[in-house]
Amino acid sequence: MLGVVLDDGKLSVRTDLPVPEPSVGEVRVRVRLAGICETDLQLLRGYMGFRGILGHEFVGVAETGKFAGERVVGEINCSCHVCETCLSGLPTHCPRRTVLGILGRDGAFAEYLVLPEANLHPVPDSLADEVAVFTEPLAAAFQIPAQCPDLDGKRVVLLGDGRLGQLCAQVLDQNGARLLVVGKHARKLEQLRRMNVETALRDAAQPDRSADIVVDCTGSPSGFEDACRWVRPTGTIILKTTVAGRPELSLAPIVIDEVRVIGSRCGPFAPAIRALAEGSVQTRHLVDAEFPLPDAIEAFERVASRAVQKVLLRIPDSDAGIAH
Amino acid sequence: MLGVVLDDGKLSVRTDLPVPEPSVGEVRVRVRLAGICETDLQLLRGYMGFRGILGHEFVGVAETGKFAGERVVGEINCSCHVCETCLSGLPTHCPRRTVLGILGRDGAFAEYLVLPEANLHPVPDSLADEVAVFTEPLAAAFQIPAQCPDLDGKRVVLLGDGRLGQLCAQVLDQNGARLLVVGKHARKLEQLRRMNVETALRDAAQPDRSADIVVDCTGSPSGFEDACRWVRPTGTIILKTTVAGRPELSLAPIVIDEVRVIGSRCGPFAPAIRALAEGSVQTRHLVDAEFPLPDAIEAFERVASRAVQKVLLRIPDSDAGIAH
Repeated sequence: MLGVVLDDGKLSVRTDLPVPEPSVGEVRVRVRLAGICETDLQLLRGYMGFRGILGHEFVGVAETGKFAGERVVGEINCSCHVCETCLSGLPTHCPRRTVLGILGRDGAFAEYLVLPEANLHPVPDSLADEVAVFTEPLAAAFQIPAQCPDLDGKRVVLLGDGRLGQLCAQVLDQNGARLLVVGKHARKLEQLRRMNVETALRDAAQPDRSADIVVDCTGSPSGFEDACRWVRPTGTIILKTTVAGRPELSLAPIVIDEVRVIGSRCGPFAPAIRALAEGSVQTRHLVDAEFPLPDAIEAFERVASRAVQKVLLRIPDSDAGIAH
Repeated sequence: MLGVVLDDGKLSVRTDLPVPEPSVGEVRVRVRLAGICETDLQLLRGYMGFRGILGHEFVGVAETGKFAGERVVGEINCSCHVCETCLSGLPTHCPRRTVLGILGRDGAFAEYLVLPEANLHPVPDSLADEVAVFTEPLAAAFQIPAQCPDLDGKRVVLLGDGRLGQLCAQVLDQNGARLLVVGKHARKLEQLRRMNVETALRDAAQPDRSADIVVDCTGSPSGFEDACRWVRPTGTIILKTTVAGRPELSLAPIVIDEVRVIGSRCGPFAPAIRALAEGSVQTRHLVDAEFPLPDAIEAFERVASRAVQKVLLRIPDSDAGIAH
């Protein structure tokens, strides 16, 4: 089958990949549309040392199981469900987990992927593929209210006007936060202002140590130190993005100001699907380009330019070579 | 008067320092005994860019005010008490604060210091100077239960067997934590084992990502990354020590494991004085050496060797040159 493979830091489009076979409890999904994420760019730079088919944001059609023939989206952490961590209620932190297109499991930039049936969520008919493909990153945004339930009335500064920042901004805004988004791109900030979100260009903004909560969606090593300049003493910094490597940074402000730093990764799918179905979170304006999967290299170059928001990969509708 | 001055990274013992004059609300204190702390070593390396008389752990005699003639210890943060931060209940985070021997205020390695009267606490008669001088670092240890009240039964790994680590270990142990102290010094760990605290040498210990809470008292840039290896997913890392400079480190484990990092600085004096008076926290075994203040340079060299625990500075009893 067709797929986009990362191997030793190099990306290639391959046509000779074996169609993946589901194990017990797993379902094969024919991928229709997938999204390129900041994490994919970090993986290219060596984050997690991943080799294999990239991609973890997708919408597709389940081939077997209780959702056979239905459109589905999928949670990306595949857990053992029997270890101490899983049984303590933290399956997304299972030490034996694989993660779609990130850790030990081929991903969604291919004609087919396999995931445990338990990871799949059916997509409401009203939801177009181009919207449903945002479920996974929007779920990550909904992890913020899951970890910090009391956002109402809080001064929240969100750093980063990119893909994830745009989704987090809408979720924070709807949870009652007094929100300021600080970014580097006038066009991206304008998208937020149209939704009545307060924004500021990073170079013009003066960090004032007044934020109850700072959310770092920059995907940049400078994000953390910026966050330290915005957060008030004893306030909270939520880290939403990971950065490859070991940048130089000082933790002294965390100690001096007794700040709380909370790592935040994947989130709940149910509220994300609901918000997309209701239209309470908007995504269509975030799609800057769509490429057919065979043009994935060009698509990645577009994303890396940083001027664009979401770039999608459309998987050609072909059953060639599949034995059903 | 006599005092130990840090200027441009250089330490010197001076005899020509002016006796400090208290402002309104302040009290002059004749210092009797002072302790050298890890923070003093970091200040020598450039932390905070401090210039002036070092020292923030002390016991002395108040010269004026409601404690005149009494032995006192003192909280080190001097706040304005009128700004928004102070009025919100966070005076130790006052943006206009000075900090004794650390930020904008001469410290305790001198014959006299001045502090606001509100910062002073009388020392019970039963408490020897050599014990009372531990009040300030012990208060910092009591900040841990103040920030994490529910320690009972929690698996806590404390990194660092030095001065602050020894005090934190006793406080954690008494708050019901299932404690393991990981350190680099067999002799220092032996001091803890005698108090029935479980210990391990760092090079022999295998971080197992099982700790509910990790407390970093290493004063070393490696402490944070070690903490990431011990803490369980969604667990808590408490940072007790600051490090000068900007070491290379990765925050990715914080995001991936959704860890909470809590900065922890100065703490409440009342429980510290009570614990020392009751003898529930032991300190005498931690005093490795005492030098007269004029030999402060030699005392600092002893502390920097890292083999020792607390080194004290005894201030000569002299009123020469003071106009009362």
